[in-house]
Amino acid sequence: MYYIGIDLGGTNIAVGLVTEDGKIVKSISVPTMAERDYREIVKDMAETSKKVVEEAGVDMQEVKAVGIGCPGSIDNEKGECAYSNNLKMEHAKVAEEFRKHLDLPVNLENDANAAALGEYEINGNGAKSFVFITLGTGVGGGVIIDGKIYRGFNGVGAELGHTVMVAGGEDCSCGRKGCWEAYASVTALIRQTKKALEENADTVMHEMVKADGKISGKTAFVAAKNGDKVGLEVVNKYFEYVAEGITNMVNIFQPEKIVIGGSISKEGDYLLAPVREFVAKHDYNRYMQKAEIEIATLFGDAGIIGAALSAKRD
Amino acid sequence: MYYIGIDLGGTNIAVGLVTEDGKIVKSISVPTMAERDYREIVKDMAETSKKVVEEAGVDMQEVKAVGIGCPGSIDNEKGECAYSNNLKMEHAKVAEEFRKHLDLPVNLENDANAAALGEYEINGNGAKSFVFITLGTGVGGGVIIDGKIYRGFNGVGAELGHTVMVAGGEDCSCGRKGCWEAYASVTALIRQTKKALEENADTVMHEMVKADGKISGKTAFVAAKNGDKVGLEVVNKYFEYVAEGITNMVNIFQPEKIVIGGSISKEGDYLLAPVREFVAKHDYNRYMQKAEIEIATLFGDAGIIGAALSAKRD
Repeated sequence: MYYIGIDLGGTNIAVGLVTEDGKIVKSISVPTMAERDYREIVKDMAETSKKVVEEAGVDMQEVKAVGIGCPGSIDNEKGECAYSNNLKMEHAKVAEEFRKHLDLPVNLENDANAAALGEYEINGNGAKSFVFITLGTGVGGGVIIDGKIYRGFNGVGAELGHTVMVAGGEDCSCGRKGCWEAYASVTALIRQTKKALEENADTVMHEMVKADGKISGKTAFVAAKNGDKVGLEVVNKYFEYVAEGITNMVNIFQPEKIVIGGSISKEGDYLLAPVREFVAKHDYNRYMQKAEIEIATLFGDAGIIGAALSAKRD
Repeated sequence: MYYIGIDLGGTNIAVGLVTEDGKIVKSISVPTMAERDYREIVKDMAETSKKVVEEAGVDMQEVKAVGIGCPGSIDNEKGECAYSNNLKMEHAKVAEEFRKHLDLPVNLENDANAAALGEYEINGNGAKSFVFITLGTGVGGGVIIDGKIYRGFNGVGAELGHTVMVAGGEDCSCGRKGCWEAYASVTALIRQTKKALEENADTVMHEMVKADGKISGKTAFVAAKNGDKVGLEVVNKYFEYVAEGITNMVNIFQPEKIVIGGSISKEGDYLLAPVREFVAKHDYNRYMQKAEIEIATLFGDAGIIGAALSAKRD
């Protein structure tokens, strides 16, 4: 049997046909055109699903269910998106609407939770407790306990990035000041890089930015690796913000495994080594087995795979 | 049937005989004398247990099991205390040792987790997810998910007070800087009160401290309630620290219920009202049902009741 996994983003709808053990057989991505009424977006999701199944040469009868990862506050039981600020959704009946076009069981999850489940299923080794952190435009999170997505009683739990780490600090997109997200996201790294550029005339990053035409999340990393002192300072301070937040999550969850995803995670060991060192030094647990910290491996596919496998589980 | 619940503290060993529905029939408290070898402490725990049962006029055969709440890093499966800095324990075989004196099934829990279970069983109304916070000498926490204590894979999870909220801030007992505990504990409140006294000659708190002979966790509260501006400023800032951390926990767990215990919780509505207001304004969830925030009701009894009921459940 197969499952359809849909990763609904603000830019693209990624749809994949996934095997029971989490392998993507075929996937198609189409533009979301997020400004549309959600019913049109859902219709495209269903039509793309049909296309994926057809192009994979699979009979629709072999597809057992559909899982959708959707940004925003999700009511999993009702299959509704209560609110999403990336998409025009307010109490949007996503599951019901989807079934008008393709009559299969639908499981709707928060996109970060779905991605967490994907990483857990593929890289979790059956960990009793598992935390997934994405360092991207924002800082997202997902928690898997005893193999199940932890959603909180109202479905909107595990907003791990929206925990204040620098009280009274930088403005966060959520309205608070000093959230982890405001220090450890790519957006934050770009702000930190910009500040370093303003304060230091003598960094190679000025030329890099001129050549690239912009400051990106890679600017400081590339400079640091090329021996630029200012770039290295930015990167080291950024690592500290990332690791401080991960230490918080370790102290809260003591997860058997914690996996870091999102675009920054592509730095691999360059990110992982200092983060592991910081956490080992600062976490509260000095006497018991330590949480393992790893880099995600699925990247963009985590959303599709996790969404698909969430449908398998519910 | 009955259960014995033991709340092992740095100062006292509190032992209670508890009914299946969490009522204390009889309890006795004896000094811990924490500097002793743990085997002697455990022997006292067992002897006091026998005494409690006898004084309650109950036959030992009616006692089904013993639950012990112990400070430190607990290996629940082995019934060992891996480490406690309040007691002389390092890989202390507490359960095994206890059974040498009283042969009943023993369940060993971290003391904060046991107290959380006590509050959950009595005041949780079967909440799907439940967070207990103690504002005392430190800031402790316990998390109950689907009716079970969340311990993390290694047993030492839910150290909710040891999450950095003011990066680079005040020293915390755990070795980090800026933990929630370093801002929202009674110890922190006393430090904050002391600082306000040093900076302000014109507060009634100077006379209060002279009369009391010391600065306590009540100084600023009493002054604030009597209209002292400096006392009120201390209290309001302290409320903010408490509420900022609770908002973090709400964003992480979205628990159906969150209960505040510890000595500060005796302030009741005076604490609860501003905390509720802050959380309602700042938490991430704007569209779904909100977590309920309440004050604990069991106080000192939570440890005994929770320990006893933890033995019932395992």
